[in-house]
Amino acid sequence: MPHLVILYTPNLDKPLADGGADMGGLCRALCDALLTVRDEQGQQVFPTGGTRVLAYPAAHSAVSDGGATGMAAGLGGDYAFVYMNLRMAKGRSAVVHQRVGEVLNACVKECFAGQLAHRPIGITVQVDEGHEVFDAKNSSLHPLFQRT
Amino acid sequence: MPHLVILYTPNLDKPLADGGADMGGLCRALCDALLTVRDEQGQQVFPTGGTRVLAYPAAHSAVSDGGATGMAAGLGGDYAFVYMNLRMAKGRSAVVHQRVGEVLNACVKECFAGQLAHRPIGITVQVDEGHEVFDAKNSSLHPLFQRT
Amino acid sequence: MPHLVILYTPNLDKPLADGGADMGGLCRALCDALLTVRDEQGQQVFPTGGTRVLAYPAAHSAVSDGGATGMAAGLGGDYAFVYMNLRMAKGRSAVVHQRVGEVLNACVKECFAGQLAHRPIGITVQVDEGHEVFDAKNSSLHPLFQRT
Repeated sequence: MPHLVILYTPNLDKPLADGGADMGGLCRALCDALLTVRDEQGQQVFPTGGTRVLAYPAAHSAVSDGGATGMAAGLGGDYAFVYMNLRMAKGRSAVVHQRVGEVLNACVKECFAGQLAHRPIGITVQVDEGHEVFDAKNSSLHPLFQRT
Repeated sequence: MPHLVILYTPNLDKPLADGGADMGGLCRALCDALLTVRDEQGQQVFPTGGTRVLAYPAAHSAVSDGGATGMAAGLGGDYAFVYMNLRMAKGRSAVVHQRVGEVLNACVKECFAGQLAHRPIGITVQVDEGHEVFDAKNSSLHPLFQRT
Repeated sequence: MPHLVILYTPNLDKPLADGGADMGGLCRALCDALLTVRDEQGQQVFPTGGTRVLAYPAAHSAVSDGGATGMAAGLGGDYAFVYMNLRMAKGRSAVVHQRVGEVLNACVKECFAGQLAHRPIGITVQVDEGHEVFDAKNSSLHPLFQRT
């Protein structure tokens, strides 16, 4: 059930030379990172067949003061923002929550090191525990990994 | 207030012949399904003028191991994922929650029967109860149905 | 941390003359509105460098009965829907929650006055308090405003 959604400003979809980021590569890196997390017993926390990352550039957005302060500081006014929210099934320990968050945030720090150094950008990583009142899963993906 | 959001991998927006699904038709089917749900007193649970379904293909995504296991199994590596989250107003009974979830999941099972049979795909249906700290509704849609 | 996400039907991205709305301008107006909110001590509630608004038209959608009742009423069947959800950090007072919601809703009422008068449209504004189990922020935006 780990379900990671990334909401971000569309300027990050520009070509890399114009200040964009490799958002497709980020999705893969985050998905791989999630699959490495182990619990206190050394078991893989997230089932391989149920782990996915989905990223969405906004069609319209507004960030902070719109750019004036960044321009005045000589850093440019093209602010970027990335919000990541992982929703995981309830019932995991606080230790596991912390491990999951730290693995995601380490990946973010590496992937966005250049952006953080050179432009005004904010990147938030949050983990929520789901508290759904109904839950159903239909999958022809899970069985692939239970067979192996 | 029922608010159903569908997040999914963009490969489902391909033409049907290339493995896509009719996501527009799915939205309509799910909306119609929501409008059929009755509570323990036989009353329609969701107001017609407040029921809506919004579907979003991701711009970038990563699912599971990226395809290797599916290809090795002869099922192809083009994994798909659909995550559906219904947020409904708080205060409904557990019976109503269950009915709502089951109606949505029955619709999903029918709409995705072919996909589930022929490709690696995961489809999750969750229902959340909203716990908002502020709520305001502005509508020229609701009055249409209160008049009739 | 205020994080405002707007999910809406894609018909609002049509040209204004065809019934569309200025969704980019709405994002800016809502962001500016958030920055005006003060708490009981007169302090700005949301940090300038952490405030952002992201808007997403659905690729596919279904609203209410699909248009029949609106057409029968002579108002047209092209229903629109806008759902706004602000997630703010936990720990704020009920007074602050109310102020934040009212500021957003006042902005919505002004921006959509024409739409509400002339077409079937529903606009919901909700504020959630985050209850995340992990939270990390990486930012080169915040420091811009702490310096000034």
